[in-house]
Amino acid sequence: MGFTLQQLSDLEEIKILKHRYFRAIDTADWGLLDAMFTDDVFVEYLGGNYRVELHGAANMREFLANSFVAETMAMHHGHMPEISFTGPDEAEGIWYLEDIFIHFGRKDHTYGTAIYRDVYRREEGVWKMARTVYDRVMEVVMPLQEGANYTVHRLAETGRKPHEVKDISHLITWDNLA
Amino acid sequence: MGFTLQQLSDLEEIKILKHRYFRAIDTADWGLLDAMFTDDVFVEYLGGNYRVELHGAANMREFLANSFVAETMAMHHGHMPEISFTGPDEAEGIWYLEDIFIHFGRKDHTYGTAIYRDVYRREEGVWKMARTVYDRVMEVVMPLQEGANYTVHRLAETGRKPHEVKDISHLITWDNLA
Amino acid sequence: MGFTLQQLSDLEEIKILKHRYFRAIDTADWGLLDAMFTDDVFVEYLGGNYRVELHGAANMREFLANSFVAETMAMHHGHMPEISFTGPDEAEGIWYLEDIFIHFGRKDHTYGTAIYRDVYRREEGVWKMARTVYDRVMEVVMPLQEGANYTVHRLAETGRKPHEVKDISHLITWDNLA
Repeated sequence: MGFTLQQLSDLEEIKILKHRYFRAIDTADWGLLDAMFTDDVFVEYLGGNYRVELHGAANMREFLANSFVAETMAMHHGHMPEISFTGPDEAEGIWYLEDIFIHFGRKDHTYGTAIYRDVYRREEGVWKMARTVYDRVMEVVMPLQEGANYTVHRLAETGRKPHEVKDISHLITWDNLA
Repeated sequence: MGFTLQQLSDLEEIKILKHRYFRAIDTADWGLLDAMFTDDVFVEYLGGNYRVELHGAANMREFLANSFVAETMAMHHGHMPEISFTGPDEAEGIWYLEDIFIHFGRKDHTYGTAIYRDVYRREEGVWKMARTVYDRVMEVVMPLQEGANYTVHRLAETGRKPHEVKDISHLITWDNLA
Repeated sequence: MGFTLQQLSDLEEIKILKHRYFRAIDTADWGLLDAMFTDDVFVEYLGGNYRVELHGAANMREFLANSFVAETMAMHHGHMPEISFTGPDEAEGIWYLEDIFIHFGRKDHTYGTAIYRDVYRREEGVWKMARTVYDRVMEVVMPLQEGANYTVHRLAETGRKPHEVKDISHLITWDNLA
């Protein structure tokens, strides 16, 4: 019963993996993503008016680098992990996301929450994400807040500029239901 | 000095208990609450214009199922636990809550924070909440945000509909001080 | 490879140190800060229109007690730690902050995020902060929200009143760039 020392150490490594992931995307620090995904990673995100589905670490990196761009401002905080082991080198994790995503091009401000369901796999001693799927709990889309002064905007410096952004429309489907 | 292996394992189990609780309430996934409270659990919440006080797991489940209802949208994130052991099968925990609670019936949007003080007890190998009390640090009540588009609303599907909601006025006191 | 039992116990103690710090400042519970900083602690915060730089536990306590005052309302939540050991009694930590700071005197509401880079040192068996530095990821400054009703405001009771606040202008530089 309970967790072994090895599992407690693994839990800490898995949490750090996920923590570093969120820090990487919100700051566009793409080097941090090295060795973070298995080659065959599966990704699916279900939002209010979008659905992302992609396979493979290269597509994931391309999706992220073209989403967290200079004309956006982002906070993605993964909270309250519920991690369990399905083998010595495999684990599942549930996380509860809170996020803010401000898009200056679209002039909108989205905030909300989602439940992540991940699978982690240890490859050559390193825990990686093999599957990461989220489904929204709540999502609110607003116009930019009146009177808001955006006094620090890290992605404006570190994210891809409009002329650098590549087409990722094969990875995301937009339903203009809103 | 420091924590033993058993205690570190217990800490992880207690954290998962609390994490699962927050996920359960915001998604109205009531089956997750099974075996989460001791039969004699004591609950007290002090908000800006409400006071909840109740005893017993059955009342707690009834309170929750009639609060997280279809006409509400909720985020309850418990952060930064400070857990200490008072015996092999008993522990105390402090958590720092951030929450959003939108009530479409009342047309208001509340957000704030609170400090939880919990007691956990292990019964037949399972950690449960024996006491959970919170006191607000800050609370802001606003009208619904202008221009807000509620694009995902999980509780609308999973929470009790108006005709299913039961009277819980014996468990909560409202002071219309605001 | 991985963490030892001693390190896992130390990780928990370091996390509790940081968690207690955030609870202390938002509630102005200054007694909680005892033994939390090394005497030679170095602090630097880079915000959109401020820069804090200070040395020493006494200055840090003075800075905090005169910042988290009765005319402010605050939420500081440190998330997603990435902690690593640089010796048996020294560790480094990265945390991802989400904060809200409402100043009723200035009639403004600031929210944002930042990345902390800390150094921890164990002195006579107690982990303390030896260095804590943050750099903003995003920061938004707004007027007070229209229609907002501040229904709980703990710092109004526990924070220093205007006539008790001391001058800390030697510890903080304001650039009125906004």
